Amino acid sequence: SGGFPTPLEWPLRFSSSDLFLPTDQFQQRHLGPLPSDVQEMCKVIGVKDLAELMELTIPASVRREQPMELPDGRLGESGSLALLKEMLSKNVIAKNYIGMGYHGSHVPGPILRNLLENPGWYTAYTPYQAEISQGRLESLVNYQTLVCELTGMEVANASLLDEGTAAAEAMAMIARAVNSKAKNQFFISDSVHPQSIDCIRTRAEYFGMELVIGDHTTTDFASMDKLCGALVQYPDTRGRFFSFDGIADALHKNGAYFVVAADPLSLVVAKPPSEFGADVVVGSMQRFGVPMWFGGPSAAYLATSKKQVRRMPGRLIGESLDRLGNPAYRLTLQTREQHIRLDKATSNVCTAQVLLANMAGMYAVYHRKDGLQRIAQRVHGLAQLFASEAAKAGVAVTSSEAFFDTVTFETPKAKAVLEELQKQKMNLRLLDDKTLAASFDETHLEADIAVLVAALKAAGAATGAGAGAVAVDGKLPTAFARTGKFLEQKIFNSISSETELMRYLHTLQKKDLALDTSMISLGSCTMKLNSVSSLAPCSWPEVANMHPFAPASHTAGYREMLESLEKYLISVTGFDACSLQPTSGASGEYAGLLVIKKYLEAQGQGHRDVCIIPRSAHGTNPASAAMCGMEIKWIEDSRGMDIAEFKALCAEHKDRLACLMVTYPSTRAFFEDNIQEICATVHEFGGQVYMDGANMNAQLGLTSPGIIGADVCHLNLHKTFSIPHGGGGPGLGPICVKKHLAKHLPGHCVVQPSSVGSEPAGAVSAAPWGQAGIACIPWMFCTMLGKQGVLDSARYSILNANYMKSRLEPHFDIAPTNKNNKCAHEFIMDFSEIRKKTGIVEEDIAKRLQDYGFHAPTMSWPVPHSLMIEPTESEDKAELDRFCDSMISIRKEIAKIESGEWPAEDNPLKNAPHTQHECCASEWTHPYSREEAAFPAPWLLQRGKFWPTVARVDNSLGDRKLKLYPSHGIIGEEFGTLR
Amino acid sequence: SGGFPTPLEWPLRFSSSDLFLPTDQFQQRHLGPLPSDVQEMCKVIGVKDLAELMELTIPASVRREQPMELPDGRLGESGSLALLKEMLSKNVIAKNYIGMGYHGSHVPGPILRNLLENPGWYTAYTPYQAEISQGRLESLVNYQTLVCELTGMEVANASLLDEGTAAAEAMAMIARAVNSKAKNQFFISDSVHPQSIDCIRTRAEYFGMELVIGDHTTTDFASMDKLCGALVQYPDTRGRFFSFDGIADALHKNGAYFVVAADPLSLVVAKPPSEFGADVVVGSMQRFGVPMWFGGPSAAYLATSKKQVRRMPGRLIGESLDRLGNPAYRLTLQTREQHIRLDKATSNVCTAQVLLANMAGMYAVYHRKDGLQRIAQRVHGLAQLFASEAAKAGVAVTSSEAFFDTVTFETPKAKAVLEELQKQKMNLRLLDDKTLAASFDETHLEADIAVLVAALKAAGAATGAGAGAVAVDGKLPTAFARTGKFLEQKIFNSISSETELMRYLHTLQKKDLALDTSMISLGSCTMKLNSVSSLAPCSWPEVANMHPFAPASHTAGYREMLESLEKYLISVTGFDACSLQPTSGASGEYAGLLVIKKYLEAQGQGHRDVCIIPRSAHGTNPASAAMCGMEIKWIEDSRGMDIAEFKALCAEHKDRLACLMVTYPSTRAFFEDNIQEICATVHEFGGQVYMDGANMNAQLGLTSPGIIGADVCHLNLHKTFSIPHGGGGPGLGPICVKKHLAKHLPGHCVVQPSSVGSEPAGAVSAAPWGQAGIACIPWMFCTMLGKQGVLDSARYSILNANYMKSRLEPHFDIAPTNKNNKCAHEFIMDFSEIRKKTGIVEEDIAKRLQDYGFHAPTMSWPVPHSLMIEPTESEDKAELDRFCDSMISIRKEIAKIESGEWPAEDNPLKNAPHTQHECCASEWTHPYSREEAAFPAPWLLQRGKFWPTVARVDNSLGDRKLKLYPSHGIIGEEFGTLR
Ligand SMILES: Cc1ncc(COP(=O)(O)O)c(C=O)c1O
Ligand SMILES: Cc1ncc(COP(=O)(O)O)c(C=O)c1O
Ligand SMILES: O=C([O-])O
Repeated sequence: SGGFPTPLEWPLRFSSSDLFLPTDQFQQRHLGPLPSDVQEMCKVIGVKDLAELMELTIPASVRREQPMELPDGRLGESGSLALLKEMLSKNVIAKNYIGMGYHGSHVPGPILRNLLENPGWYTAYTPYQAEISQGRLESLVNYQTLVCELTGMEVANASLLDEGTAAAEAMAMIARAVNSKAKNQFFISDSVHPQSIDCIRTRAEYFGMELVIGDHTTTDFASMDKLCGALVQYPDTRGRFFSFDGIADALHKNGAYFVVAADPLSLVVAKPPSEFGADVVVGSMQRFGVPMWFGGPSAAYLATSKKQVRRMPGRLIGESLDRLGNPAYRLTLQTREQHIRLDKATSNVCTAQVLLANMAGMYAVYHRKDGLQRIAQRVHGLAQLFASEAAKAGVAVTSSEAFFDTVTFETPKAKAVLEELQKQKMNLRLLDDKTLAASFDETHLEADIAVLVAALKAAGAATGAGAGAVAVDGKLPTAFARTGKFLEQKIFNSISSETELMRYLHTLQKKDLALDTSMISLGSCTMKLNSVSSLAPCSWPEVANMHPFAPASHTAGYREMLESLEKYLISVTGFDACSLQPTSGASGEYAGLLVIKKYLEAQGQGHRDVCIIPRSAHGTNPASAAMCGMEIKWIEDSRGMDIAEFKALCAEHKDRLACLMVTYPSTRAFFEDNIQEICATVHEFGGQVYMDGANMNAQLGLTSPGIIGADVCHLNLHKTFSIPHGGGGPGLGPICVKKHLAKHLPGHCVVQPSSVGSEPAGAVSAAPWGQAGIACIPWMFCTMLGKQGVLDSARYSILNANYMKSRLEPHFDIAPTNKNNKCAHEFIMDFSEIRKKTGIVEEDIAKRLQDYGFHAPTMSWPVPHSLMIEPTESEDKAELDRFCDSMISIRKEIAKIESGEWPAEDNPLKNAPHTQHECCASEWTHPYSREEAAFPAPWLLQRGKFWPTVARVDNSLGDRKLKLYPSHGIIGEEFGTLR
Repeated sequence: SGGFPTPLEWPLRFSSSDLFLPTDQFQQRHLGPLPSDVQEMCKVIGVKDLAELMELTIPASVRREQPMELPDGRLGESGSLALLKEMLSKNVIAKNYIGMGYHGSHVPGPILRNLLENPGWYTAYTPYQAEISQGRLESLVNYQTLVCELTGMEVANASLLDEGTAAAEAMAMIARAVNSKAKNQFFISDSVHPQSIDCIRTRAEYFGMELVIGDHTTTDFASMDKLCGALVQYPDTRGRFFSFDGIADALHKNGAYFVVAADPLSLVVAKPPSEFGADVVVGSMQRFGVPMWFGGPSAAYLATSKKQVRRMPGRLIGESLDRLGNPAYRLTLQTREQHIRLDKATSNVCTAQVLLANMAGMYAVYHRKDGLQRIAQRVHGLAQLFASEAAKAGVAVTSSEAFFDTVTFETPKAKAVLEELQKQKMNLRLLDDKTLAASFDETHLEADIAVLVAALKAAGAATGAGAGAVAVDGKLPTAFARTGKFLEQKIFNSISSETELMRYLHTLQKKDLALDTSMISLGSCTMKLNSVSSLAPCSWPEVANMHPFAPASHTAGYREMLESLEKYLISVTGFDACSLQPTSGASGEYAGLLVIKKYLEAQGQGHRDVCIIPRSAHGTNPASAAMCGMEIKWIEDSRGMDIAEFKALCAEHKDRLACLMVTYPSTRAFFEDNIQEICATVHEFGGQVYMDGANMNAQLGLTSPGIIGADVCHLNLHKTFSIPHGGGGPGLGPICVKKHLAKHLPGHCVVQPSSVGSEPAGAVSAAPWGQAGIACIPWMFCTMLGKQGVLDSARYSILNANYMKSRLEPHFDIAPTNKNNKCAHEFIMDFSEIRKKTGIVEEDIAKRLQDYGFHAPTMSWPVPHSLMIEPTESEDKAELDRFCDSMISIRKEIAKIESGEWPAEDNPLKNAPHTQHECCASEWTHPYSREEAAFPAPWLLQRGKFWPTVARVDNSLGDRKLKLYPSHGIIGEEFGTLR
């Protein structure tokens, strides 16, 4: 009964009719349990089969009947790759001179292979568990240090999403610092990259900020007393260096802040913004060895002074001490994270661009300071050479000598010249109908310039008005050249050979527990398989080497793939339109709320500004709502929302109700029965329903946002659709919407994605399709799995969670689930009782799991004193059993504390995790044995022990006594220290 | 002074003239020491600079003046890749139906990324140090078990070089077993793959074996009393299954052996050769997930019965116990290795195809038994479908139903049809002027068959004589179908998901010390950087997916690359011609000696058969000479050969002197002064000089085989030219020769390489260009480094060795070097005195180095009680210092034993290596501390400790009580057990 499609039982049995099915079918590769395991697991759960489990888990009212419109999933892995290759071969990879913040770059071989393509790096989670994350924390400290050294600022975070949104974050941060309603103007130089202006404009609208866009050379900042800050680009979007002397002073006198968007490669040779008074510096690190990827992913940076540190958006690595008094890196100031600030948030950044930040940091490590200088000088030299040769050829070069990598020139038929060169696979930038620009980067060769100049001449760009020759020496004019010491840290001046870099990467990676070691059952994070076949296309040149603003005639392959992915996501959600622009889940939330705002305005309901959010929501939800200027009304939902209470709340705010933000199934980890009634109530009271799709893994094909009655949702493609977490990014957070909202999907001022609406919300990302470069991962996921495999992903994830719950229920308190005692794809273990009885807290259990070789599940959220466990469909029964056995064994350890056999303060849980240094020390003072400390389970010897490299890190010390980089000079002094 | 070219000092200084040099220059990536280090190191050595060191190291008489004709090395990494890409784009990748033992295959994504492209696997050395090699040893046990299960035989080795030479090895092994001069005939069925016949023919010639090639169905084996063995192909080269019933009996009655060459994929569904009496089974594992790579590398197998085990060629993994009584894998029966058997050898196999064997084994692990069955059935089904569809279309199909993957058909204009299809990018096999064959593999799709049949029809292949439809059910005729149980081991029936395979690969890899952890200073093995840029092309489709017998019109890119590499090697050696066919150093030795034999014969000197070999020679030298039917005369060379003694020896054998085999610099590790006189003497007495090029790393651009006066040499491209060792292969051992020998370079019966001579020696490998698929690695090495970088490789390798020697000299005895006390690129530490005084032997020191995180250098060769250390140019000073510090620290430990502070039998050296299990055990009974055991050096905490996973392995126990797989059933029973 019950309305589920009756799926073919996986795996597809071999039969003569399937004789010719390609034998590299992906379903059996993605899903952990074998059919025989499924039977056994169902028995433990107490259900007949998977179908019965689904019926007991998912309310009848929301069950999906309609199969998803996805590929049939019979192509196999190589067939799917071949199809994608064919599609993407429609891309034209041209010589790129477009610039605008996106540049060709060489990914150094050892970084490509040993970091970007290494599961040890890309399958790691955000380094919340510091003891098993010292490797990538060190790498991120390198990155932060690099940014500080380039910009001259005191502190930098561990990445933001892109330069455009980083500039918007800077504005928001400044507004908070200024903290005055009266100062609600923000100035943007009109020579800032247009897509950045676009992103800031979007952000300003509901943030209550008035933008003044103008010429910074003629603006009288001293007289603008409503100004809270000003942003300039350095060098500017036309490639020019300006002297900003005086601007900072004028702003500061006015109580306003000076924000500079700067190209980091230029900063290697140019005067750092700190020297002309910048308070905040933002930019993109893409050209530090990250591909252009049609716009993303790449890491943006934000650097500022120490006094802003508690207002900074994004994550920040600092240092603390561990239990044994050794220094240890950690994510510091977690109070800055969205789950604390909630409705007072000015930023919702959660998933950022960690993998790309690591790449950029390692690029600098590998090239060293002297190599970076050589690259920057060469790039500048190429621009000089072009200016010189073009001028000689009679082209009217308009750049003075104060440029870095971009040269402009005038020609009456600019557009015709542009198009003629595009045909010859050379892409320039059109500035206006008589001006073109050419930008140079490390991938260009001297010979390219001869070809380019000849082509310009042939296309009639030479007007005979060419100026005289420019000096070609790779040197900036003295007024703009960097002089002081910088990047003196050992880490940027020691590694030179590929062997050394390979070992450094390996040394760091070995410190970190990633999916290549064991399951990472972080609730709400869906750490499933990131298959090689889905990732491989990211390294294809036709995917990697595309500028986001390349002409449409060059990007047909990309567009076809992206539009096909949009269709898949539309079908999965049961909605009508999709925008791939948001770069993370939080970015999707923000975009979705904007769409709702625009819709309400169009309905004459623009005054509606109340957003209802259940208490169990992820911190990004209220943060996103706050960024849209909404007022948050909380509602309790520990056993699901009470419908009467919910109705009363709606009624109370009926004139102002804008929307509900609801996660389904909620992070309480079961499918709520009344979700449709809840959604209907919102509509009744004039609001819209935003569904947070982080738990979409439980829905795939079994129900949908459409069925429950939502209007818009985001999807975390880095959860449900198998994009790897990368240690904290990249993510991809598209939104899907119902028809009535489609016309408000985000636009873009440079290139309109085909999803753009007729009355669009502004751009939410710097690139039209946000993270296009990793969109092939979900595309491959859908194509390889097909509708049955995608459906099975949900079914198996629910199976795995309920199996674990059933195994652990006799030993632990489990937070309430649905009326049939079935959880969704995750469940919550509640340690309140244990804590009361023994003083053992969730953190002790989480850290003790490290001794057993496991990453801790999500801690203390959404229930205090809990762990939330999400196994995903990709884990096999043996791994689930090892985890359950560990938990049960830990329960026995707790019993020994309860019974007094072990003292409350000196036991394996309180002392967890244990390091090899401690376990191999001559002295051992604990009342339990070394074996009990380090080898509490048999597989630790059989499969190899994973050792945390530091003991438990003192978090409060780290937050109280902030130790940051590079000011105290530790970073790099001790290459690979004990961390 | 002194005749060296004065090289530009590296690194190329940034200067305006070099402003536009690409910034990804490779030289600084390949070479470890920085210029500042070089200065310091020279000081320690006591020389002014590198130039002076070269002068003191290399005899003036042999110095090279002429620069090598190599690229200029200024393209950079990406420029070099772009050039190669352009060259290889001339390849045409067609649908391949050629068969003949080479088949399209899918490399599963996780194997590609986590094994083939993972330095943890490919930079490992042959697993002689069992304690830090349990991962790949387990993987090789999987491989051996797989082969045993497929063939039905009792024991299989851990790979041979290719199917053709494996068949030749089988013949040689049998000859040894039969051990009767009277039985000198070997029968080969004329339906064996032609290239295998070619390889056997070559081998038989000087082995004194008479070949009888005929139709096995009509041969009366019982009457052939001179027969020692017979070889058939199963299924045969035309795809047919034959019943071999009776053949084995007839042979056995005659005291002869039955050898079967079998396709392993067919064996998944077909009756195993053990069931029709095979004594030896050989074949290629290529189609188990290894690319065709234009012929190689891939792993060949040889399986036989237990009673042959001590006669088997190649390496064999067995089991023993470690010091703590735990089971441990190891290379067993090292007595079989070439360095023991020496002049009585029947095989010279040393480097094999370990990396590819691991891939093939993992392919089976990942597909599991049921997946392999599905693949085999599908492939057979595709062949059936083709037979059926072609027949329906009127093509005269000649295959009966007893075929597996290959179908033959007749058509009067066979060659024209073949060529027409080649134009359409479909490659068939031409059997004779009226017969074509098509072979199918896992990469083919059902749809391909429709296209193929239509194309055949359009090309006029249909004669109207088509037979009736064939059943298309994927099932073999009962008479040939496999029935019994096989592949029941857990390891071939448990792993299903990509997650599990990724973790299994990671679990194994973590156990093994490879170059990603620390230097591997194995003397004579040259474990230098294997750069990502040089390896990347191996994964390009135009490199991977080429059949070795594809038509010349499809292989222009490959040929251009190979011929360009030949030219580079010719210039490096100072010779005149080059053959890339040999697949390993030993294969090159054999090829070179064959060329000498052919030359002598052509001069009427065919009777010459004495080969002089110095005592320090590598074991493959006498083995290769023995295989050519030569008699070996040894000469002492502990301080270089004495010229008078040498002359006397030549004089003694003047009528029979065929050649000298000499290594230069010899493995005594210094440049001998009298090498030219030695070579001249050989010539004087009518012999030729074969130079073993294993130490070519010390010569590059500084001297050459041409200058010293040799006539032929092989090069280990897997040493000097940076092909990774892969844990024991693949290798590539081309030979270069002087003009007078060029006409005898090896030929090939299917496709002649351009290097073939006019009076060629026979084929030494199954494929025309042996290991073509990895030839891009040395090509990239030469192109990226250029002549200066290649020269610097030698200079820096000599620098590094002399620096280490200088640091260690105050603490240890160093074996004699040259008159200036300068070693070449390696040096020998002699522990005879230590042994006498303390009972500490070289093995204790080697194992103790593991506790310090290092792989042991080469042990006890060529000097007893020694370690031979070769750092290579890729190690930086810090790593050299860590190694030297370890040795000095170990010397201090020895002093404590000497002084009686530690007992002779219970000290950190005798007990080395220490495992984490032991160091974390409650009980600790040793008179030294746990810290002294496990953390004797500071970097072990800073950089991460590498733990051996088993304690010292008992070698003699392992050889005495042979424990092999899979007969005792251990393998796979305990997935990832404590090994
Ligand atoms: C329920 C929920 N919503 C939203 C988010 C935010 O997504 P992102 O980190 O991609 O911004 C998360 C992230 O974990 C989440 O769990
Ligand atoms: C001096 C010497 N000659 C020959 C060889 C044999 O080379 P291969 O192992 O490639 O057959 C070696 C291998 O280590 C060697 O060191
Ligand atoms: O990333 C999260 O905060 O869940």
